[in-house]
This record gives sequence, C-alpha cells and structure tokens, in this order.
Amino acid sequence: MELSKRMQSMPYSAIRKLTPYADKAKAQGKHVYHLNIGAPDVETPQEFFDAINNADLDVLSYAPAAGLMDLREAMADYYKANDIPMEASDIVITAGGSEALLFALLALTDIGDEVLTCEPYYTNYFSYFKWAANEYVTFPTSVENNFHLPSKEEIVSKITDRTKVLLLSNPGNPTGTVYTKAEIRLLADIAKEYNLYIIADEVYREFIFDGAEYQSFGSLDDIDDRLIIIDSISKRYSACGARIGCLATRNNELRDAFVKLATGRLAAPTLEMIGAAALYRKTPEYFQEVNREYQHRRDVMVEELNKIEGVTCSNTAGAFYTIADLPIEDADHFCRWLLEEFDVDGETLMMAPAAGFYEHSENFRNQVRIAFVLNAESLKKSANILAEGLKAYKAR
Amino acid sequence: MELSKRMQSMPYSAIRKLTPYADKAKAQGKHVYHLNIGAPDVETPQEFFDAINNADLDVLSYAPAAGLMDLREAMADYYKANDIPMEASDIVITAGGSEALLFALLALTDIGDEVLTCEPYYTNYFSYFKWAANEYVTFPTSVENNFHLPSKEEIVSKITDRTKVLLLSNPGNPTGTVYTKAEIRLLADIAKEYNLYIIADEVYREFIFDGAEYQSFGSLDDIDDRLIIIDSISKRYSACGARIGCLATRNNELRDAFVKLATGRLAAPTLEMIGAAALYRKTPEYFQEVNREYQHRRDVMVEELNKIEGVTCSNTAGAFYTIADLPIEDADHFCRWLLEEFDVDGETLMMAPAAGFYEHSENFRNQVRIAFVLNAESLKKSANILAEGLKAYKAR
Repeated sequence: MELSKRMQSMPYSAIRKLTPYADKAKAQGKHVYHLNIGAPDVETPQEFFDAINNADLDVLSYAPAAGLMDLREAMADYYKANDIPMEASDIVITAGGSEALLFALLALTDIGDEVLTCEPYYTNYFSYFKWAANEYVTFPTSVENNFHLPSKEEIVSKITDRTKVLLLSNPGNPTGTVYTKAEIRLLADIAKEYNLYIIADEVYREFIFDGAEYQSFGSLDDIDDRLIIIDSISKRYSACGARIGCLATRNNELRDAFVKLATGRLAAPTLEMIGAAALYRKTPEYFQEVNREYQHRRDVMVEELNKIEGVTCSNTAGAFYTIADLPIEDADHFCRWLLEEFDVDGETLMMAPAAGFYEHSENFRNQVRIAFVLNAESLKKSANILAEGLKAYKAR
Repeated sequence: MELSKRMQSMPYSAIRKLTPYADKAKAQGKHVYHLNIGAPDVETPQEFFDAINNADLDVLSYAPAAGLMDLREAMADYYKANDIPMEASDIVITAGGSEALLFALLALTDIGDEVLTCEPYYTNYFSYFKWAANEYVTFPTSVENNFHLPSKEEIVSKITDRTKVLLLSNPGNPTGTVYTKAEIRLLADIAKEYNLYIIADEVYREFIFDGAEYQSFGSLDDIDDRLIIIDSISKRYSACGARIGCLATRNNELRDAFVKLATGRLAAPTLEMIGAAALYRKTPEYFQEVNREYQHRRDVMVEELNKIEGVTCSNTAGAFYTIADLPIEDADHFCRWLLEEFDVDGETLMMAPAAGFYEHSENFRNQVRIAFVLNAESLKKSANILAEGLKAYKAR
C-alpha cells in the first residue's frame, strides 16, 4: 500500500523533527532544555482554569461553529483596546492559529495558487501550503539588517499571476523582527497594487521589546476587504495546550466563508473557549509584566549566545525567537548529536535546525532557531551546554 | 476581492445550514427542538470534568503531537476489550473525528483521487472531500432494505483507476444501518481485490439496538495494511464539545504519516485529552445503560413518526439517526418554514434536510434526517410539531 504523493513529499516540522531523539535522551535520564519550540514556562493565568472549573456543565455539547459568543465579544474588546477595530461578528474561533491558517488558505486560494512570504518564514506554514495544495514564493531577508524587508522592487519581483496572498508574521517567527510602520504600510500598498489578500499572523503582538512601537495591519483603514488577521492565545496567555485561536476580518463575505468552513468541522473545544474568554478579560498590566520577563530572557539569551566563540545572533526585537549562526556546517546533525551523544552533568539541549524555515535551505544549514521561552537560569545553562557542545563536537 | 473557486463551490453543512433561522426563532422566544444534529442531551460522565478539575497544571503546554500517552493507553485498552487489537502506539489523537478524516484523506489520496462511499453518506464527509481536493463516487442504498449494501457487482461497478479509499460509517450516519458480518467481510474482500484503503468511521460503535451483533473492521485480521479506524468521544461519551477523536491503524508507515500530519498542527487540546482518558476507563456497564436509553428513544421516535399520515421511516438498528420520507416535495423549504413560520404553543422543530446527504440529491428532496438525541418526552413533542406542521404546511 502506497502513501499519497503529497504525503510522501511532506517533511516533518523542523520544530519537532528531533523529538524522537529528545525522547530517547530523556529515557536515558537526561534533562533536555527545550529551546526548539515556543512553549513558554510562564504560568497560564489562574483565571483560565477557574473559568473552566466553574463552568458547571451537565452536557459538554457542541459550541456554535463560529465559537462561543462570550469569547468572540471578549476578543473584540481586546482588539479595540489595541486600536484594531473588530466586532464580535468579525471573529471566528479556530483550533489554534494553525486551523485559522488552513481556513484562510482554503477560502482565498485555489490549488496551485501561490502565497508570497518572507524567507525565513515560520516552518509550519509549509505544512499548510501542502495541505491546501498551494505553491509559495519568498523574498529574502537576512540577519545583516535584522531580517527587515528588502526593497519594494525585490518584493514585487516575486509576484506572479498565481500569487493570491501575502502572508507575514509580525513580530516575525523565527526572526523576532518587529516591522516598522513604514514597512507595514509598504506591504499594504503592494497588496493593493497587486490585488493580494494579506494574512497577518500577529500571535506575538504583545511581545515587543525596548519600547518599540507596534504597527498591526488591523489598524490600517484602507485594507478592510483584503485583510485577515490570524491570532492565538497560545503565546499571548501562555496557553499553548488550549488550541484556541481565531480569524478576524472586516470583509463580511470572507467572514461568512470562514463560518462555512468552521461548520464543516462542527466546533472548537467548548471548555477551552470558556477559559480563553476569561484570559481576554485580563487587564493590560498582565502583558507589561510578561513582557518585562521576556525582555529579560531575551537580554540573557542574546548576551550568552554572543559570548560563545563563533556564534552570532541578532538582537531580537519581538516574539521570543532568535536565529543564531553556529560555527558548524550542518545544524541538523549537530542538534541531533547534542541529544544523542552529549550532556553536561546529565543535561542537554534541543534546538530547531533553521534550514526548515527557509525556501533556499541549502544556504542556511549552519543556523538554528532558538526560543527563549525558559527562565533566565535555564537559558544560561542552555548556553553553557551549547558552548561546551560546540567544543566537543569539533574535537570529535 | 474574489473567494477561491473551491470555496465558492463549498456548500453549508446540511446539518447546520438552517441554524440562522433557528437562531431567529429563538430570538422571537420560541423553543427549538434540535433533531438536526447528533448532539445528545445525555449527561457527560462526571469523571470527565473531575479529571480536568484535578489536573492541577501550572502551565497549559502543548501535548505531544500524537496525543497524551495516558489517553492513547486508555484507548488501546478499550479497543482490546472490544476485540479490536490496537496498541497505544497505533493510535494518534485528533481534534474530533473530523480532523481524523482530514488526516486520513491527506495521507491516502492525491488531488483528484476518488473516495468510494455509500449513498446516503454523512454530509460532513463532503466538506473534507473538498478540503482534500478529492472526488467521490457512491453506490446506492435505499430505505426499502434498511440501507443495507447492494450487490457486489453494483459496488465494484463504481470503482475506477482513481479510486483509492472505501469510506463507510458503521453504524451508518444518516441511516442507522448496522452492517452484518457478511457485509463487512464483503467490503474487506472488495478492498483487497481492488487495492483500496478502508476508512472505517465507527464513532457509533456502541449504539446497537435489539441485541444485534456488531462487526468492526478492526476485528478482521487480514486488512492490517489497509485499515484506518476513525473514532471520537463525541457520541460515545456524550462529549461533543471536547473535540477529541483518533486515528487507529496497524499499518506503521501510515501511523508515522499521521504523526507527521499531527505535528504540522502541533497538538490536540491538553485538558480535553485528560478528561477523555478518564472516560475511556469507564466500565462496559456505562454503555449498557446509555444503550437502553437510546433504544427507548429509537422506539418512541420511530413509532411516533410512523403514526403521522404520509410519513415513513426505517426501524433504525444503530446510531441515533433515522431517514424519514415526508409527504412534501421540498424538505429544505419545509424545514425552514417550520423555523420561520410555525410553532405549537411557542415550540418548533429543526431537522436536517436529507438531500445534503446524497450525491444524487434531486431524487431525495422529500427526506429529512432526524436525530433522536433528546429525551422521550421531547421526541414526542417534536413528532407532534411535525404532524401539526405538515397539516398546516399543506393547508397554506
């Protein structure tokens, strides 16, 4: 029996492909620091669990396809407070940002249509391009200018007749880049000029460091017909396991299409939506505190990484990732080796080889994506394991 | 801005397409009996909520892509107790049976490949054929023989070079048909002869009435390489809102493909998996009690429906649906009229027009699918609304 050709051509997510080796290391009694995945160790606010425990349901029935109205209303309030005008009726709840992207691609593209995005891009986008049978094209960004946009000419040179969508994460995953107002304006203008939809992945909206200004696509008032925001509570409220996200758009036809798709899979999980509604009612002070913590982690991580001989990484401005250049040839092999053959006092480290985040991956085989999602102490230990690991790897 | 062509060709789920009219009826203060959707009013076992409330997590982090091992183990024990040999490692947890079907189609079929199923079929399958860009072919079944299989000749006459998968729900949705041992054997033999995968949707496995015998595809020992079971806790434990299902297969290559797809969307919801593990540890007595209740509801529903002049329905043997012939031309219009213009003492009724469950829908416009998921008293009231509604509809 043969698998489908599309299945055979589907790679493992770069974020989790080394998981079997991490599992083996743990089975041997090693502790593994997970810097491979954006799974924060920050506590999920107690309000989430309290709301679920107090729900007092007799029957856990299907929620409405578009999601619980209470959550959609809480999200609308949150958006308005962030200068993103969205009504509850503009929002469709999804099983994480992942399902939101799938729905957006199905609604906006036909088979073989192209999505334009930057390189490097979030590796799991690639899964969804495969699922929705899309092609993709990328414009390059590089560590030299902290992964900011190239010129308009370079961007538009990638657009073809089949390009239907511009997809961008801001702050960027895996780069941590926070795009300037001028950059967001430029992309909106390109979308208008070339009649593209914009899928704005803004799940890291709150994680902005050094007091930088954040420009959401949702605050622009001339792209209502073409803008879809993808969002998620995973990072925002440290609730990755809830699998609650949303699509938000001011284009009513599109919103109806999303409801239709949502109806096809019946509903998102009821209890997790009840918890999420409580999270969206937290006050802005919550984000200030969390942001301080992540900025501290960023400081520690970038400082420790740049101390290591031969390692360079950018001074990430947002989200909680950084792309690091390592003084090795094959990060895939090195990361696997760390898990299989190396430890410092019984502890080792899992990172995501960055090649999986690139269209032209052959040029970036020495890079890793590092998620600074653990506490500062763990990050320091992780950097030490990396430093010692690099020495031992070279000395093999 | 244009939606994609595939989106434009996607119909609303027949189960929920009339929801806006039901919402309006409710806004006018009417009570609506929902016989349109298999959303039981049976209480979700308290163990589900207790397990979640006792989980005591600080951080709601991503679960493993294939699901929590504790749940996979509980499921394996359940399968073994049902004479379906499955190990925990054969099982991948999904966001309901819906995501399970999507993963199966992506792994087994390429764009344009055909799925063979019976007509009528579960209407939401159609959404997934669209999402996965499949075509489908159907062999006919009819109310005259309680929707059992036609001859082998008739079934295989539908198979083409592009047919890759046989998909069947057993007990049948929307028909309630429980296939005999000989029928399941016949389909397994056809799958072997024509080299088809079998996707067995067995989410209603426990709902078998009148002491009938149930034959799972999973109990056959000569189709390990081609069998995928789709399952869900939604109906089994009256937990539709949890969105927990699974894929189970003894084909290791396929299982690895499912894990890879699961990795692309990161994880299923953590808390709901914790609750589901507790459900799968319930003893078989639970099902006996629930089954008695549903058999009673079936008895009431079928008796009451057949009392109505011009209405006929089959004596459903399993699941909790029946297809009823109504003495009208256009069930879609009638169902909408019931919601918009009719009530008995402030109460009305929502049913699913059955045409959406047929490939050749033009021949079945007078049928509805009725889910007998409410208590007997509500079912009697619903039948009365239907009887009075039919009279008033004709007298317009």
